[in-house]
Amino acid sequence: MRTQVVIIGGGPSGLLLSQLLHVRGIESVVLERKTRDYVLSRIRAGVLERGLFDLMREAGIAGRMEREGYPHDGTLIAHEDGIFRIDFKELTGHTVMVYGQTEVTRDLYDAREKAGGAIEFEVEDVQIHDADSETPHVTFHRDGVEHRIDCDFVAGCDGFYGVSRQTIPTTVRREYEKTYPFGWLGILSETPPVSDELIYATSERGFALCSMRNRNLSRYYIQCNLSDKPEDWSDDAFWQELKRRLPQDVAEALVTGPSIEKSIAPLRSFVCEPMRWGRLFLCGDAAHIVPPTGAKGLNTAASDVHYLYNALQQFYEERDPEGIDRYSERALARVWKAERFSWWFSSLMHRFPEQNAFDIRMQRAELDFLESNRAAQAAMAENYVGLPY
Amino acid sequence: MRTQVVIIGGGPSGLLLSQLLHVRGIESVVLERKTRDYVLSRIRAGVLERGLFDLMREAGIAGRMEREGYPHDGTLIAHEDGIFRIDFKELTGHTVMVYGQTEVTRDLYDAREKAGGAIEFEVEDVQIHDADSETPHVTFHRDGVEHRIDCDFVAGCDGFYGVSRQTIPTTVRREYEKTYPFGWLGILSETPPVSDELIYATSERGFALCSMRNRNLSRYYIQCNLSDKPEDWSDDAFWQELKRRLPQDVAEALVTGPSIEKSIAPLRSFVCEPMRWGRLFLCGDAAHIVPPTGAKGLNTAASDVHYLYNALQQFYEERDPEGIDRYSERALARVWKAERFSWWFSSLMHRFPEQNAFDIRMQRAELDFLESNRAAQAAMAENYVGLPY
Repeated sequence: MRTQVVIIGGGPSGLLLSQLLHVRGIESVVLERKTRDYVLSRIRAGVLERGLFDLMREAGIAGRMEREGYPHDGTLIAHEDGIFRIDFKELTGHTVMVYGQTEVTRDLYDAREKAGGAIEFEVEDVQIHDADSETPHVTFHRDGVEHRIDCDFVAGCDGFYGVSRQTIPTTVRREYEKTYPFGWLGILSETPPVSDELIYATSERGFALCSMRNRNLSRYYIQCNLSDKPEDWSDDAFWQELKRRLPQDVAEALVTGPSIEKSIAPLRSFVCEPMRWGRLFLCGDAAHIVPPTGAKGLNTAASDVHYLYNALQQFYEERDPEGIDRYSERALARVWKAERFSWWFSSLMHRFPEQNAFDIRMQRAELDFLESNRAAQAAMAENYVGLPY
Repeated sequence: MRTQVVIIGGGPSGLLLSQLLHVRGIESVVLERKTRDYVLSRIRAGVLERGLFDLMREAGIAGRMEREGYPHDGTLIAHEDGIFRIDFKELTGHTVMVYGQTEVTRDLYDAREKAGGAIEFEVEDVQIHDADSETPHVTFHRDGVEHRIDCDFVAGCDGFYGVSRQTIPTTVRREYEKTYPFGWLGILSETPPVSDELIYATSERGFALCSMRNRNLSRYYIQCNLSDKPEDWSDDAFWQELKRRLPQDVAEALVTGPSIEKSIAPLRSFVCEPMRWGRLFLCGDAAHIVPPTGAKGLNTAASDVHYLYNALQQFYEERDPEGIDRYSERALARVWKAERFSWWFSSLMHRFPEQNAFDIRMQRAELDFLESNRAAQAAMAENYVGLPY
């Protein structure tokens, strides 16, 4: 079997790349370890930057997002002295779109199916061969049978634990990492969201986030210990703790209900350099992870897809390898900015066990500065809506 | 002996307060532990915010500063990938003034002498009594004789090691502190400055600062180990190390020469709350210390003087204690912002022993963001020229 681009990973990055390439007449095969239903059951972020919704339009899959998504013109930040708003639209001219990552993935699957796109599910033991040559190929097993696909390029969209990054020799790649001494306990509940806009809250008990998927589906998070397990937290305990971390009027307005999903995620900052090795390109979580504060995970994966899609188009349509040669440099320049923003916003909003009283006052002073200074708000808003590609 | 306000400490804060009160017909006595010559021999910062030069005008001591000072419209920031400029004037409409703290102090002494202001030098064993009553008094010794001054108010302008802060009971005051794991080795040399504007430089070898006092007097600093002593550093070793931390063209343009002063200062962030106890008010270093990156020390002392001077004027002229009652709150609101800026700028520009590769990349990403983002530059510039009082 032969194709132009083998895409490893059937999550949103891999599918978006595949769909964009399809629109430009470039052929690809997507390899996914799990089933479609499994991929669609993963609950992830739900705030899309303008760059991502522009790409979705270009890929022809923006229709449902535009009908069902919720444009947000700003966000709320609550702290011990009160609550204030960052007005994205007024500060930057742009908004973000609240639309679940699961929905993006579903729209992409529907579009790929309609177009007859090749997606191989439940593949095992994927291996990338000769990525540093002009004739790479990928092998995998399914039902005990080995398959081989020859290709021009391999896109590694297979996440942090995938094979793609591991294929780059350790003599070539350098990894940068920071782990945070806490996790996020999140629940999904079929209740109306407490606010029309997201509320990022910090308190002496730790961070909390009120977010939403639609008018009757809310997503709430609280900072928790890394040793906690979801089953340690009854719904009641979660709601009580969440309320303690919110301003009183918000806590009083909160509608609680049974959780339909509850999980704990660790927080990590991670970057692998370079993002290209020969004809293998890393995209999204395969190359970088951000802590979720600020919702940069999917959005930064999308910026990689943007650079890679343009590079491949330039290669196939103009026979010009410039975009490919500069993919790593371009993608990383934006990745580091998103890493910085996510690290800054996480550092600002969480309690850290090693903080002393001065450090806590620095957080408060930074929040006061953000609340009172238009330039600081603009810098935050420009990052939140997404820096230009 | 009796006066309206006893001012403890004959450095720039105490003298400026005394001179401003004099202009409004309020009587004070300044107590200084050392001699005038000793105070004038202390080399300190040399960048004045607009708030401070407005106060100097109000105090009638701005003439020489306006003739001999150097207005700076911007500053340069050098890092491993290059050098860029923050244009204060264009971003904020304001500039800063380069004029040594020593010169400010000299102008203040001259003005106080001309006005016949009472300054008691070489006083020992200063004690503040009954500060929590309406009839405080201050005692001190000179030449073995005890003296007593009765007063309405006491202004504690006696620095970090002074008696004023210690007079506030430990049950009342709370102190916040951060120490930095390095110092600044500074030299003064009679050489033309390498640049018309200050250069803040960061490199893998650590921080450096090129600053100036006048056309033939330069002040340079390098980050050094806390265990270093000035005598460990020959002039040659200093110049060599400085050059290694500067962009090549700057290093090549640097004119070196013998140092006329060489010293090492530790870096500290410190705040005491409250800044008022009864009729005792803390001003400047007595209540707070900033690391010198960003030159906020004298300028933040000046903002305290502004609030206290206005409060005392309101009390004496309008019999209204509102300014006095709110002095601590108002002064601290601005102090914490200056602390935040100094901490942020110090954290951005120095190498810390505990940094890992990710942390270093975060510094670089923040510098890249500052270099490329106008809102980030505006937030920095607004802090550098001085937030409004």
